[in-house]
Amino acid sequence: MTTLRLDVEYEGTRYRGWQEQKNARTVAGELRRALEEALGSPVELGGAGRTDAGVHALGQVAHARTRGRARAAGLDERLAAALPSDIHVLSARAVDERFHARHAALSRSYLYQVSRRRTALAKRFVWWVRRPLDVAAMAAGADRLVGRHDFAAFCDKPDAQSSTMVVVERAEIAAVGELVLFRIEASHFLWKMVRRVVGALVELGTGALGRDDFDALLADGGRAARESAAAWTAPPSGLFLERVRYPGEPPLGPLRAAVPVERGLAARSD
Amino acid sequence: MTTLRLDVEYEGTRYRGWQEQKNARTVAGELRRALEEALGSPVELGGAGRTDAGVHALGQVAHARTRGRARAAGLDERLAAALPSDIHVLSARAVDERFHARHAALSRSYLYQVSRRRTALAKRFVWWVRRPLDVAAMAAGADRLVGRHDFAAFCDKPDAQSSTMVVVERAEIAAVGELVLFRIEASHFLWKMVRRVVGALVELGTGALGRDDFDALLADGGRAARESAAAWTAPPSGLFLERVRYPGEPPLGPLRAAVPVERGLAARSD
Repeated sequence: MTTLRLDVEYEGTRYRGWQEQKNARTVAGELRRALEEALGSPVELGGAGRTDAGVHALGQVAHARTRGRARAAGLDERLAAALPSDIHVLSARAVDERFHARHAALSRSYLYQVSRRRTALAKRFVWWVRRPLDVAAMAAGADRLVGRHDFAAFCDKPDAQSSTMVVVERAEIAAVGELVLFRIEASHFLWKMVRRVVGALVELGTGALGRDDFDALLADGGRAARESAAAWTAPPSGLFLERVRYPGEPPLGPLRAAVPVERGLAARSD
Repeated sequence: MTTLRLDVEYEGTRYRGWQEQKNARTVAGELRRALEEALGSPVELGGAGRTDAGVHALGQVAHARTRGRARAAGLDERLAAALPSDIHVLSARAVDERFHARHAALSRSYLYQVSRRRTALAKRFVWWVRRPLDVAAMAAGADRLVGRHDFAAFCDKPDAQSSTMVVVERAEIAAVGELVLFRIEASHFLWKMVRRVVGALVELGTGALGRDDFDALLADGGRAARESAAAWTAPPSGLFLERVRYPGEPPLGPLRAAVPVERGLAARSD
């Protein structure tokens, strides 16, 4: 058996998410088909993060297992030829055959891009928020997320989870040009958690949600809190699975945009 | 009469270029329709640069003339509502009614993005070149373009031009992450000139074209030279009308990517 580690970038716009489904186009479905074509044998594929429909990835990681030896020479080119243009394998390399992308991961980080202006070039990669945003208030809210908290209020279908407790290692906000960026790193995430946290942070940034109300969401995962957070759910277009981190790999670098929106009028005042 | 100056950003992928045409979707056609809807009166529209099919703009400039007074209040929002999502008016403001976007311009600058890797997120905004590129050789070629030269070899249908002489004020190459960027500024450009210059610079970068052969293209606009340059024409996806400069406006800032392709694997080595 051969196990490959794949580092994968994709634009999620056209897909019903990562996970394979019958009768729906998914990233894992396209990737497995391309791998089987490129390797010439059946492949078992597993990803580190199950991104939802429309969510992008800068660095999804997957394991691909195939019987026998994988023809590694020229694999990058065969994969590029077999994949649609919105999925790209950044690297494919043979690893210890027991490597499991999801189980072996120390943490995942997600990046969210809020744009403060309409953008013709990056519409697929942002959430355009017209209301003015207090970035300092959002940053204070992000600080509150760090540590061990019950994220039941931010979780779709919390009863389906064994636990809604999540240890957030990092949560940060940065204004970069016309974007407000949010990044969160944790060992695992609940379903729709990042998009609901972003929605609540934007409510905080507009002043529609007070600091105490935001704090209360972390203390109260009841039905009313869940319904509020659900109504604020940020759209998938702004969300990127940024990186999956494994033992021995360096920590996250500085927070940067995935697809910046800083040109345009700004270019004139250089 | 009211004349508006419009600064416009667009993704050209879905359009048959800037200029209005019968029976084809063009950027100016969509913009004029949206302006007439937002202003409630007929509009005469003229742009500073006639971008080709598939070419993008970070800062196209246009004048829009309408009889009577334009309702300026709330115009930005009415335009945003009336325009497709891949066209965005960065600013619309009343100016001297004689302002003519094309005639008043001092210079135009175009930016071209060559990507040295396949990219899932920025495919619409680059030309992916698989062959290794010698960036220093390309930069030396770009240096040669500055000044007054006959660009007949780089021009589609040179006989339709009154002259094929162009004064290039600036031509530069920079490697930024996985991109090789090219920027050129001149008072005017010939049809397909930028894309053919980029094609020749890439030939220079791969070593397929020698330094002397490149120089010869600037000295010889004959049929053989034109056929070579035509065969190298770079695709429109990587090209952006970056900026149109008018009297009193500052010079171009540093060369930066329009849509960077620097994340992915690079993120891990931060």
